[in-house]
Amino acid sequence: MRGLVIISAGFGETGPEGKERQEVLRGKILSYGMRCVGPNCLGIINTDPEVNLNATFAAVAAPRGTLSISTHSGALGLALLDYVKSNSLGIAHFASIGNRIDISSNDLLEFWKDDENTRVILLYLESFGNPGKFSRIARSVSRKKPIVAMKSGRSEAGGRAASSHTGALAASDVAVDALFRQAGVIRVNTIEEMFNVAKGLAHQPLPKGSRVAILTNAGGPGILAADAAVGWGLSVPTLSDDTRKKLAEFLPKEASLSNPVDIIASATGEHFGKSLGILMGEQDIDAIIIINVPIRPPEEIAEGIRKAVSLHQCDKTVLACFMMSEAKGIDLSYDSDKRIPVYLFPEDAVQALSHAYPYAQYQSSDEGHIVAFPDIDEERARKLLQTEGLLKGEGGWLTPDVAMKLLKEYGIPVAYTRAAFSADEAASVARAAGFPVAMKLRSRTITHKTDVGGIFLGLEGEDEVKNAYHELMTRLTERGRISEMEGVVVQPMMEGGQEVIIGMSHYPVFGPLVMVGLGGIHVELLKDVAFSLHPLTDKDPDYMFRQLKGLPLLEGWRGSTPKDTEALKEVLLRFSALIDDFPEIAEMEINPLIVFDRGNGCMAVDARILFTPSTVQ
Amino acid sequence: MRGLVIISAGFGETGPEGKERQEVLRGKILSYGMRCVGPNCLGIINTDPEVNLNATFAAVAAPRGTLSISTHSGALGLALLDYVKSNSLGIAHFASIGNRIDISSNDLLEFWKDDENTRVILLYLESFGNPGKFSRIARSVSRKKPIVAMKSGRSEAGGRAASSHTGALAASDVAVDALFRQAGVIRVNTIEEMFNVAKGLAHQPLPKGSRVAILTNAGGPGILAADAAVGWGLSVPTLSDDTRKKLAEFLPKEASLSNPVDIIASATGEHFGKSLGILMGEQDIDAIIIINVPIRPPEEIAEGIRKAVSLHQCDKTVLACFMMSEAKGIDLSYDSDKRIPVYLFPEDAVQALSHAYPYAQYQSSDEGHIVAFPDIDEERARKLLQTEGLLKGEGGWLTPDVAMKLLKEYGIPVAYTRAAFSADEAASVARAAGFPVAMKLRSRTITHKTDVGGIFLGLEGEDEVKNAYHELMTRLTERGRISEMEGVVVQPMMEGGQEVIIGMSHYPVFGPLVMVGLGGIHVELLKDVAFSLHPLTDKDPDYMFRQLKGLPLLEGWRGSTPKDTEALKEVLLRFSALIDDFPEIAEMEINPLIVFDRGNGCMAVDARILFTPSTVQ
Repeated sequence: MRGLVIISAGFGETGPEGKERQEVLRGKILSYGMRCVGPNCLGIINTDPEVNLNATFAAVAAPRGTLSISTHSGALGLALLDYVKSNSLGIAHFASIGNRIDISSNDLLEFWKDDENTRVILLYLESFGNPGKFSRIARSVSRKKPIVAMKSGRSEAGGRAASSHTGALAASDVAVDALFRQAGVIRVNTIEEMFNVAKGLAHQPLPKGSRVAILTNAGGPGILAADAAVGWGLSVPTLSDDTRKKLAEFLPKEASLSNPVDIIASATGEHFGKSLGILMGEQDIDAIIIINVPIRPPEEIAEGIRKAVSLHQCDKTVLACFMMSEAKGIDLSYDSDKRIPVYLFPEDAVQALSHAYPYAQYQSSDEGHIVAFPDIDEERARKLLQTEGLLKGEGGWLTPDVAMKLLKEYGIPVAYTRAAFSADEAASVARAAGFPVAMKLRSRTITHKTDVGGIFLGLEGEDEVKNAYHELMTRLTERGRISEMEGVVVQPMMEGGQEVIIGMSHYPVFGPLVMVGLGGIHVELLKDVAFSLHPLTDKDPDYMFRQLKGLPLLEGWRGSTPKDTEALKEVLLRFSALIDDFPEIAEMEINPLIVFDRGNGCMAVDARILFTPSTVQ
Repeated sequence: MRGLVIISAGFGETGPEGKERQEVLRGKILSYGMRCVGPNCLGIINTDPEVNLNATFAAVAAPRGTLSISTHSGALGLALLDYVKSNSLGIAHFASIGNRIDISSNDLLEFWKDDENTRVILLYLESFGNPGKFSRIARSVSRKKPIVAMKSGRSEAGGRAASSHTGALAASDVAVDALFRQAGVIRVNTIEEMFNVAKGLAHQPLPKGSRVAILTNAGGPGILAADAAVGWGLSVPTLSDDTRKKLAEFLPKEASLSNPVDIIASATGEHFGKSLGILMGEQDIDAIIIINVPIRPPEEIAEGIRKAVSLHQCDKTVLACFMMSEAKGIDLSYDSDKRIPVYLFPEDAVQALSHAYPYAQYQSSDEGHIVAFPDIDEERARKLLQTEGLLKGEGGWLTPDVAMKLLKEYGIPVAYTRAAFSADEAASVARAAGFPVAMKLRSRTITHKTDVGGIFLGLEGEDEVKNAYHELMTRLTERGRISEMEGVVVQPMMEGGQEVIIGMSHYPVFGPLVMVGLGGIHVELLKDVAFSLHPLTDKDPDYMFRQLKGLPLLEGWRGSTPKDTEALKEVLLRFSALIDDFPEIAEMEINPLIVFDRGNGCMAVDARILFTPSTVQ
């Protein structure tokens, strides 16, 4: 196969004329069966000795190593190459992919998945061509090796620049977060963070857990590292008596043997080495951070550390921090392939660990799977929409009772909901439902019912229902909207349980995004909500629940009975199944969904479903 | 005056024996009228040419400059000196203060306040000897020059190390945050952040506002900077038409003239310089961040920038980022004293601004003042406590009715609250209060009334009150706690308003910390609370309100009437006055305080007040 790298600019990024030029170019290339990187890019590098290709116009060439980098921005690519080198790292492949008329990050990810030279993948993204495809590929790649990604355009101002820069739609940041999380991609926010993480992952094993030991010759930096570790969700446990005893045997009595282990300013290379060896043998520790403030010659300390790690093989993650501007010159290689990365600041080492640990968890956990519900009959649901008189191709909001019927078809428990088209009918429906009842406006155009006074709660007896019906008509007449009334729906009043809101809306490029949150102020004021991209796997609901600050209200709080989160989880998965079957649904919300005490299930009380025009079959 | 620097260790930090040795030493030094730094420290540096003293055992000596540094950790001091140098910064003074038998950070702050060589003060603190004194001094210093402080021991693990390291009590982090905020101290969490901020403050004016222009030769980094700016509370506004027109005159048409201003990869030093000059003239911008990805020779770009800033005097804050490992070698001095600091990563420059801006706001805003309330009669309040039979010296909880009386003495509106000691008395008190009423257990030992079923709400009529009284006696008898009952209190039921909780507790070393939060789940589940250290100035309540996520519930939300936050503010200040007059109060909580619609004030419905033993006069 033949390949092309087109570094020239003046194509799609410049406007309509350039776009046309680019299309002509693309056609020509495809007609020859060639693959192409660019145009408008910095080029590519492959450091494999058998290839040894530098097809970039960068002045800096990074040495050979295990990172593979894809960047949407050529200029940032230049900076990345410089940082690779100055961080004593090296690259397997580098690709600045420019306008991507052919090769995209997705293609590179697929290639790097099985590439033996690539250990860590770094992505700088300004937009997503096809997030669904990215997600599928990234999920399978991140099972094998870490993807560290930076997605810019998080803010509106950033987005403005991103769209003028690459002409791509600024994707909502919430959707990007969900996408990365679901695909096991490590999201970083700064270039520095990217390199902190890359350094940690390139030559050290993933941590098996969150427990960090800190070994330091200076108290202050040890405290800073412990603060950072705890702040980022790691733990700094006290060490076992056995370990403390072993340390006490040779350390001066002023040393502090709790964790951080402070071997004080007089520590020699041998002190560092011996202490490290002992910590490597401690069972209840998953990672070690060594901090050296340069008091004795750094090379002496480095030597002590190298000796210890060569001697004591262990599978803990070991990182080091030499607090001196020349830190980058310190070499802690102890094998042809293994090396303790050296950081300038303690917090940088901790930050690397704080990303490596959740990634390790992701990698070792089961892949989630999409749950199939055999009881769901999509055909019957489609028929329902037709028989209920939904005009073909017209789209629009479903009435509340039809929305509830559709949910019911998908196995989502719904409150008893009946439509009525006169005061008398409402009264008799209410009697059947059992008093007290709620009565709500039925309309396909007025979906915010409270705005027109369209909700009546706690109606006791038929007279109250009839009066409310007349009152509703009066209110709508006053507002000139009586023609939009299509009767009412009547429901029995619900008691108890916790109100939850489940929603879905389409995000440009990303497709349906599913949201869950607790009802009332939790969603609307406190924005205490969690997102996942559709389709949801069986793992997603639990993850979403854990994001909610108000979760204790569901799990039992201050003696209240725990709510039926299992039932809620099932509703979320069935909700996702509904989204899957009806791509015509533009927007959907169950609000409220009442979650009852554990074992008692949950129940949708109201729902709004919007179909896009011209697509309802 | 004579001075001593004692670098030797082996004193207070080693245990009881060392502490004794230290006391002897202190006595001897004081008897000679000498001042002393140390013991157990790295020493001091003074770079004033007339002094030129380096009394440290550090191998690195930082050049002369405008930073003055105080550090509790000598070893960290070594690292700080190294970072000063490698960041092209310099010091006026450096002091590692060790065990502080005499000279403390407070003494240094006072000295540096009027020291002409000191422009920025950096503090590394592991504990506070006297937070009240620190606050007083820091408030007056930070009016004149910035204090950038790092306080370690934020986490429990960090605290463990801090206490074994310096023997100081780990102070609660919330209290430290409040202390720094109230005193205008810039709190940083990492050493890197400290230097990012110091670099920005050392040679550039403070920003007048939050509006940042970003000038870049590469789209990606520009977006990253904009994202970071917006994320940290700055704004990246679009530029005026005039400015865009001026830029368009000489920039290539591919350049992006919105903000970030992307002058693209072909940008020369002249392009940078001209663009910078135009941005310096833009009225609606307070700060400029220049980003250069090294495509053309860095010195050419530096020259263009230096020329522009020398030519166009302006009072905007200008920071630069050269995205290359040699960034630190770039010199953007343009005056004997002025220099644009050069950062390695765009986010570092933004971080510096994000601290400089709130500090500038602090410095230019009025100092708050403690409000005196002439209507408060402390003597009468003391008498109340005596006549109400509070046994002298015994301490303990006040009964709810006495607590309410004390609040009332301090001008805090309280609900009508009457004690009753029999079912009949309760009934007649209830009649006087007006039905429905609330009836609550009155006890000085059972303060969590709900735990024993001690609260009855919405009682209608005398019979219900009597029955409730008997029921309460039964409940307490069943729990074997009937002897702790000292009657009940009766209140009319309240309607409407927003529940708020106000609390105070003593923090070790820090003294009283005042808390405010919305009632119910907001405080207890969501921890949506804000703190200030006592005494509160008139500025503190507003600051505290702004910290609350639930603030819209007070300020009017979804059409609800705004609540009386002015009255709430006054209650907070009166609460602080009460704390001031009665240092004997160990703990105090008004829960709930009902805040009514704007103009209607607020009202304390329940209160718990604990007096420490042996101190009630």
